[in-house]
Amino acid sequence: MASTRHVLVPWAHLVDRMGGEWPDGLRVDVYDGEGEPPRDLDDVELYVMPYANPGALALLDRLPSLKVLQVLTAGVDAVIGRIGPDVRLCNGRGLHDASTAELALGLMLAAQREIPHWAANQREHKWDPHFTRSLADSVVVILGYGSIGAALERRLLACECEVIRVASRPRPEENIYGPESLPELLPRATVVANVLPSTPATAKFVNAERLALLPDDALVVNVGRGATVDTDALVKEIASGRLRAALDVTDPEPLPADHPLWALPNVLITPHVAGGSSTFYPRAEKFVADQLRRFAAGEELANIVPH
Amino acid sequence: MASTRHVLVPWAHLVDRMGGEWPDGLRVDVYDGEGEPPRDLDDVELYVMPYANPGALALLDRLPSLKVLQVLTAGVDAVIGRIGPDVRLCNGRGLHDASTAELALGLMLAAQREIPHWAANQREHKWDPHFTRSLADSVVVILGYGSIGAALERRLLACECEVIRVASRPRPEENIYGPESLPELLPRATVVANVLPSTPATAKFVNAERLALLPDDALVVNVGRGATVDTDALVKEIASGRLRAALDVTDPEPLPADHPLWALPNVLITPHVAGGSSTFYPRAEKFVADQLRRFAAGEELANIVPH
Repeated sequence: MASTRHVLVPWAHLVDRMGGEWPDGLRVDVYDGEGEPPRDLDDVELYVMPYANPGALALLDRLPSLKVLQVLTAGVDAVIGRIGPDVRLCNGRGLHDASTAELALGLMLAAQREIPHWAANQREHKWDPHFTRSLADSVVVILGYGSIGAALERRLLACECEVIRVASRPRPEENIYGPESLPELLPRATVVANVLPSTPATAKFVNAERLALLPDDALVVNVGRGATVDTDALVKEIASGRLRAALDVTDPEPLPADHPLWALPNVLITPHVAGGSSTFYPRAEKFVADQLRRFAAGEELANIVPH
Repeated sequence: MASTRHVLVPWAHLVDRMGGEWPDGLRVDVYDGEGEPPRDLDDVELYVMPYANPGALALLDRLPSLKVLQVLTAGVDAVIGRIGPDVRLCNGRGLHDASTAELALGLMLAAQREIPHWAANQREHKWDPHFTRSLADSVVVILGYGSIGAALERRLLACECEVIRVASRPRPEENIYGPESLPELLPRATVVANVLPSTPATAKFVNAERLALLPDDALVVNVGRGATVDTDALVKEIASGRLRAALDVTDPEPLPADHPLWALPNVLITPHVAGGSSTFYPRAEKFVADQLRRFAAGEELANIVPH
């Protein structure tokens, strides 16, 4: 019989996804990031860190036998420096794609079809239709084209949009443009969909100069990170009535109550909820179940990231 | 040289879509449904009736040589009885699909991701995130599956939904169920997307009994016709907190200011704007340009409907 390896997972019901039994060779405890963790942590080899829970991170200091850390976020900034070089680190790349892409799409549709306006009329019991913009036939420039961008693109193509892919470096064989092409691309955009991560290279990437390249009435959508946009420059373009915006992330964040963005016309703000929908958990649970099976079988794990 | 045939179109700029010249053999006048029509109407053979304009219909009585009437709506109720039996009638089937399907999708995303709630918080400058439902992983039952339903389905599949097709008669070879299957299908629905036309057979099709088959928290979307839903039964299910709704059409319509639907929680109302977006015109213009070419060339026209 194989030796038993101790693992920590965040959900007791995960066992239901594994056919009612944990894989042979694993001893599984549940720790959801709140309350008391299990007592005996000395031999924990795999820790699936609970999502969005502050207690989760503190446990890292109490796992001397840790061999694999699985986080459920795409970014790993929070754990860098908190685990030894021999600990294998796996991230949650792909688990947030559907949730983030669908909010981006929802923001675009809401802005183009004026859903906040109709909702405001609803509060006044007012039936007062007019023609609106549409999303179909739009040209959408995706900044930071990656797995979320690809998930967004699939949705946009079904919505009869043209999609232009932009990433940090051009990859002509995948029809991906680099930033040096933006002077030709941005003037064609009906919508800019920003899914850029926050790095030193992307700070205020969407600046006054690039915003000025957009045609009148273009919609700036941000589901990436607030710091990738020069907020003052964006506020100016919106206040003048030239551009519109739908923002799930802002800089600063949370947006202070006295920030001018809140009250500008043609701005829709959601409070960083792109990844936070019910579609995350089924994907995360299926992924973790698969990782546990691979771990128990001694197979190569998925989503390994260097650190 | 072929004889010249007189036609009326609603847009002067249509000539730009035809390479800058009207097709040989046509004499084209423009009438947009407002103001004075052209004087000489006796020899008009083809009339492309302006969209959503009351003057358009009155002109029908002044076209003694009419051979083809092209309307831009899918329904032809308004012109039935106003043209002779020898006049060929063509409708606008397909021209509204993208606009209607994208509003249906926008309503679903807005309801699942709580965009009206975030917009209300925005008015109070309040950043207060929470987890929401998602659209991905939903099971969407489309009632009245046709060309709009197919356009909606393409969007929903890209959004990682499962789609169940229901029409007036089952067509197993196309995976289309009939109404007799609803007792098995409705309990599986996360969302019901109603795109039913208004006919005697569809009056109050979505009744108390069928609503009762839906699981708790299901979302009822209507972009078809208000009369296909038993509004009182729907109000009851929503008022009890069991179901939610996103409605572009209502019964009665316009919805009176004192109607209970306006103020129910978990209801989103748009004022019959599904077809009314900018994506309609490019499609309508391209279609009419193609019809004119076919007419000038003596070819069979598209979208002929019996009357």
